[in-house]
Amino acid sequence: MSKCGSSLKLNRSADYALRAMIQLARIPEGSRVMLPELARETAVPESFLSKILQSLCRAGLVVSCRGQSGGFEILPAGRTATISTVISAADGPIRLNACLVEGKPCSRRSHCPAHPVWESAQHALLNALDSQTIEALATQPHASQ
Amino acid sequence: MSKCGSSLKLNRSADYALRAMIQLARIPEGSRVMLPELARETAVPESFLSKILQSLCRAGLVVSCRGQSGGFEILPAGRTATISTVISAADGPIRLNACLVEGKPCSRRSHCPAHPVWESAQHALLNALDSQTIEALATQPHASQ
Repeated sequence: MSKCGSSLKLNRSADYALRAMIQLARIPEGSRVMLPELARETAVPESFLSKILQSLCRAGLVVSCRGQSGGFEILPAGRTATISTVISAADGPIRLNACLVEGKPCSRRSHCPAHPVWESAQHALLNALDSQTIEALATQPHASQ
Repeated sequence: MSKCGSSLKLNRSADYALRAMIQLARIPEGSRVMLPELARETAVPESFLSKILQSLCRAGLVVSCRGQSGGFEILPAGRTATISTVISAADGPIRLNACLVEGKPCSRRSHCPAHPVWESAQHALLNALDSQTIEALATQPHASQ
């Protein structure tokens, strides 16, 4: 019943946000890149990338500067962000199941035997996605585009 | 940009499939339950549950029998199935990102530094979701509805 034929799959916006963040982290500190160039380098459609960058700016991971030497620049918080932080900024917090929404306890929680399994699955997933920063990913030796 | 405000979230069909499987595993072996009763017990709309049960039947986890003592019955393969098996049956295989589709290697794989992180995240998630069978979940002491 899934449109894409897969379960628990990341939305494209979050995947593209990750690409953009890794690419921005490869640029020397203090440098900026214009939207068309970043779109080309990440192979993301420019209009889609523009919306994604707005989300990343709102989350304080990226800054957009106008003017002749303008463009997009990754902020220190963006360099130290993990994959899960970037996903959350682009597409909302990671919650494998509706029963894991903070501050809104699931009504079935007290008698649902699957709840602890979802909690441990969420924990394992976040652990893996938080294992490296964007900066570490961007500077890996094999990570040349 | 996510419609539900969360990332990597399970579709409702897979969540409902899990509920149905756990409920079916609570019924004594050889017994059956009719659709309206199962819909009431799981709090899933009857027409939606009917479609989900079709998927579970196709996957060989459940059988549907006609006649006076007819209804839905969990099969041995359903009792020993794990959460990930039920999710796959209802909603397609678990793939956290498009780059993890088997037999269709991602064109960015060779230079994408995020790929190994996605592989380890997928591995950690499946490990957690495969940690218990439906039967084990259904017979937990606190799992009374």
